[in-house]
Amino acid sequence: MFKINENYLKLPGSYLFSTIGRKVKEFTLENPDKKIIRLGIGDVTLPLAPAVISALHNAVDEMANKDTFKGYPPELGYEFLRQAIADHDFKSRGVTIALDEIFISDGAKSDSGNIGEIFDVDNKIAVCDPVYPVYVDSNVMAGRTGEYLPDLGKWTNVIYMPCTKETNFAPELPKEEPDIIYLCFPNNPTGSTITKAELQKWVDYANKVGAVIIYDAAYEAYISEENVPHTIYECEGAKTCAIEIRSFSKNAGFTGTRLGFTVIPKELKSGDVMLNSLWARRHGTKFNGAPYIIQAAGASIYTEEGKRQTKEQIAYYMNNAKVIREGLSAAGYSVSGGVNAPYIWLKTPDSMTSWEFFDYLLKEANVVGTPGSGFGPSGEGYFRLTAFGTYENTLEAIERIKRL
Amino acid sequence: MFKINENYLKLPGSYLFSTIGRKVKEFTLENPDKKIIRLGIGDVTLPLAPAVISALHNAVDEMANKDTFKGYPPELGYEFLRQAIADHDFKSRGVTIALDEIFISDGAKSDSGNIGEIFDVDNKIAVCDPVYPVYVDSNVMAGRTGEYLPDLGKWTNVIYMPCTKETNFAPELPKEEPDIIYLCFPNNPTGSTITKAELQKWVDYANKVGAVIIYDAAYEAYISEENVPHTIYECEGAKTCAIEIRSFSKNAGFTGTRLGFTVIPKELKSGDVMLNSLWARRHGTKFNGAPYIIQAAGASIYTEEGKRQTKEQIAYYMNNAKVIREGLSAAGYSVSGGVNAPYIWLKTPDSMTSWEFFDYLLKEANVVGTPGSGFGPSGEGYFRLTAFGTYENTLEAIERIKRL
Repeated sequence: MFKINENYLKLPGSYLFSTIGRKVKEFTLENPDKKIIRLGIGDVTLPLAPAVISALHNAVDEMANKDTFKGYPPELGYEFLRQAIADHDFKSRGVTIALDEIFISDGAKSDSGNIGEIFDVDNKIAVCDPVYPVYVDSNVMAGRTGEYLPDLGKWTNVIYMPCTKETNFAPELPKEEPDIIYLCFPNNPTGSTITKAELQKWVDYANKVGAVIIYDAAYEAYISEENVPHTIYECEGAKTCAIEIRSFSKNAGFTGTRLGFTVIPKELKSGDVMLNSLWARRHGTKFNGAPYIIQAAGASIYTEEGKRQTKEQIAYYMNNAKVIREGLSAAGYSVSGGVNAPYIWLKTPDSMTSWEFFDYLLKEANVVGTPGSGFGPSGEGYFRLTAFGTYENTLEAIERIKRL
Repeated sequence: MFKINENYLKLPGSYLFSTIGRKVKEFTLENPDKKIIRLGIGDVTLPLAPAVISALHNAVDEMANKDTFKGYPPELGYEFLRQAIADHDFKSRGVTIALDEIFISDGAKSDSGNIGEIFDVDNKIAVCDPVYPVYVDSNVMAGRTGEYLPDLGKWTNVIYMPCTKETNFAPELPKEEPDIIYLCFPNNPTGSTITKAELQKWVDYANKVGAVIIYDAAYEAYISEENVPHTIYECEGAKTCAIEIRSFSKNAGFTGTRLGFTVIPKELKSGDVMLNSLWARRHGTKFNGAPYIIQAAGASIYTEEGKRQTKEQIAYYMNNAKVIREGLSAAGYSVSGGVNAPYIWLKTPDSMTSWEFFDYLLKEANVVGTPGSGFGPSGEGYFRLTAFGTYENTLEAIERIKRL
């Protein structure tokens, strides 16, 4: 008689964004006349840049011709894309990453969900609190998190690193030693980030205690301030302790186009075993690559034209972030983020819980945001708005919120 | 101190097709003048059908316009694609599959590799021998297979179901009761298949012993004979015991375009728990969908034009299969498969091992095939050729082999 993975049954409720989707759907059915503005899920709204569109059309034409048709992609991804990444994302910042340290994937969500597979079940993870739900949920599924304590909204075997107003929304080094540390800077959901000097402390700590840092840099393109590292490998010693996960979703609007990559330096080892080899084996056995035409599209964002166009898109979203940040501040809200990240993190007013504020905002302003508590217990009393809407919608949403 | 998943270290050597790739690369470097013909990996060679190309271009144009741009795809996949699948792959064969029983993915390799995650580590798997390596390797990584016995080429905790000339290349019901049974018909690598009446015996057996069948139907489009089931759900009772995995790689040439799907009927339960819900949770947490433009391309193969064009491609490949089958038979080889599948399975001559024959064929005929032993111990002494080459190359390869 077959047995299921009982860890799945421990997961409380459904995935955060599914719940939001259901609530919005219900509200829309009951109020078909209301114009909902979605500043909830971190989904982009601008169409793909002309350079990307052109690369896609060209690649499609290649697939139509027997001489240029592409079958199974190379296991690690096309070299033209890995070369562009090595040059533009790393070499340009003084970091040398070899092509076989880059693994092209269908996105950062898959990679951050699957990366746990190369580690033993018996590893203790540390996460920021609040945190992107995939880190914790994927570890729950793997049986790494112990039992859920519904009253606390916490797992018994997870080290939580609170990121609240009191810590300036940055984590402090944990008192208990973790084996795997998830960090995401610029941060989702708080929109905060840390300086290179601060990140260096984490790298030194991980090397000292023998922990691996899983560094999610999906939002690096939004960094506007100096001294904020674009890759963890800018820190000395990061290659012996850090895996970096990157996405094309937010820097080039690929949320529906699906492309990402993970970097695992060969220096990162457990005894003699390179984690790079383990991930290569996982990649070769349980994945068959991102589509050729999508990889070709990915490479186009590293051309001069592609760089300029995607930079303009980011500027557009960051202008929205400014509208939200300044508008809410003017309305008396306590806000952070939105300077190096497309997320604005606000304190809910009048001691409302995060979900109470969600319902209130949906009902009274027809604006969808994301409840902070959905990201972890320390997110309770906070709320996330994203800058990925259109300028017009963002402006209107903020005007509506101001009128509340 | 972090700990790796030690199960990975149990995997002997590297993934079959990586090894073949390396050997061919080495031979090519040493013999740059030789024209290699690849009938090894099951990769297609015909360009995408015009209907698919047209759908891709249209979808790319949609991504260029803010009114039709698509962000994150729906978790289970676009409804237009799931509807087309439900209608054309199932309803047309008298099988009712609900839209929320279909999960669109980036391919059958990912699905067959990842599906094990929803099951406990403590499940005993049964596999055909020889078998597509991903089934076993992904279970090794999960810690489900026990220890490797290099002399036997077997794992201590796996039930092997030999498929050899003696069993007419079909598995017999195992003596020891398995929890999870992997079946693939039409079969990779042997090219064999079984009748609906025979498959019904497996469904009845699984329901009797409480096992799950993971049914890989990636090659169903190649079925040419009557009485061969196109989906396991043609068998009575299959919905309470079977998961079906499908691919667009071989029926529409999507090996480099990446699209597949998995069907989990809601009737398939462990106690009260629907496996459908577990996979939905996995899909929603550790995956973010196939690209919109690829899903749009997938839907195009169900149009009248798309059906006709992909049928022509399959006919082209099956003509190659005939060339290989008849050519090798005429040359005195013992061959099977190639009637309902694009694979031809042959007995190596002169008691050569599979890898000896691989090296011999590469060196003497410059033809690349796949050693049967790479698919399991009972594959030793056999060899796989695929019909996915061009007609001209296939003809030349067979002429070369005949001259040996």
